[in-house]
Amino acid sequence: MEQVGILLFNDFETLDVYGPVEVFGRFPEHYYLSFYSLAGAVISNRHNVSVNTLPVNERTRPIDILLIPGGIGTRTAINDEALINAIRTTGTNATFILTVCTGAALLAKSGLLDNRRATSNKRAFDWARSSSYKVNWISKARWMQDGRFYTSSGVSAGIDMTLGFIADRHGTAAAEAAAAQIEYLWNPDRTNDPFAD
Amino acid sequence: MEQVGILLFNDFETLDVYGPVEVFGRFPEHYYLSFYSLAGAVISNRHNVSVNTLPVNERTRPIDILLIPGGIGTRTAINDEALINAIRTTGTNATFILTVCTGAALLAKSGLLDNRRATSNKRAFDWARSSSYKVNWISKARWMQDGRFYTSSGVSAGIDMTLGFIADRHGTAAAEAAAAQIEYLWNPDRTNDPFAD
Repeated sequence: MEQVGILLFNDFETLDVYGPVEVFGRFPEHYYLSFYSLAGAVISNRHNVSVNTLPVNERTRPIDILLIPGGIGTRTAINDEALINAIRTTGTNATFILTVCTGAALLAKSGLLDNRRATSNKRAFDWARSSSYKVNWISKARWMQDGRFYTSSGVSAGIDMTLGFIADRHGTAAAEAAAAQIEYLWNPDRTNDPFAD
Repeated sequence: MEQVGILLFNDFETLDVYGPVEVFGRFPEHYYLSFYSLAGAVISNRHNVSVNTLPVNERTRPIDILLIPGGIGTRTAINDEALINAIRTTGTNATFILTVCTGAALLAKSGLLDNRRATSNKRAFDWARSSSYKVNWISKARWMQDGRFYTSSGVSAGIDMTLGFIADRHGTAAAEAAAAQIEYLWNPDRTNDPFAD
């Protein structure tokens, strides 16, 4: 059993989190989900979604898979040095790191994405790029995979990426079965990005 | 401003809730979101998602749009007479009622769907149908609209339905804009159901 640790901050994007949660949640034999934040407080967003979180720096079990969402809150979070440090520390020890949307900018800021190929939201791409020029930003990709790093385009692309992650680890049939269960038309081709340009 | 009241119960399906939340959340000029349950307690599910809810029978403002998710918890919830009564009372006074997945079975049980055309999850369709034979169940539909009732197929169909609801009320361009913002390929045709049969 691997822990999927989701690192939240205020004004995260709702579906960036709960799309991947729905997919990982379909594989309870492999994954369990935990919700973290820097302070371990209640985290909320503009959709009136609030989440009780655990303090990430006091985690009692290693985060095997770190998931970082995007959202308008990234504009503030990127200047939160303690949060970026927590991403660096947690991410260094994680087996895999997944980002959705502008979550890639936070990961880039930590330095862990240096010299990696990565993507982000197409509507905030210039902003994401500005978070680090050491990243090889790919502007046309539904999601990117480079080593242990998976980065997706905006919001619902996180569902496609997580299904792709499942396919990489557990086979395409497993991903296809999960997609069918949630009646979702999975885009399995990470180079097929209908929202580029 | 209309209140979208989401009625939760334990073991609701994650994306049934947060897909529509992401769409409604894109229209803060029209909608605000509230999370309810029968007891007003913390509601959780098998994905380790927990939600602080308000008690639905003590609501202080009318629920204009009632949203009922599905999930494995519906199998228990359908026998909870107090919950079904709350659906009947709240739904009677709501302007619109939306269900995702097997949420339709709970609404059907309340009697409010009698003689209406409705759909549900394609993998639990027989169970949904058994909740009430007074409903005109439609087995091939991404979502159905009959008067003030919107019912969708499984899980991610709730996103398509909510975008359809937005289109009906605010125009297709508004729905298309929201879909583009979340980089989601909206299926705008409710008769196009790739998961029927």
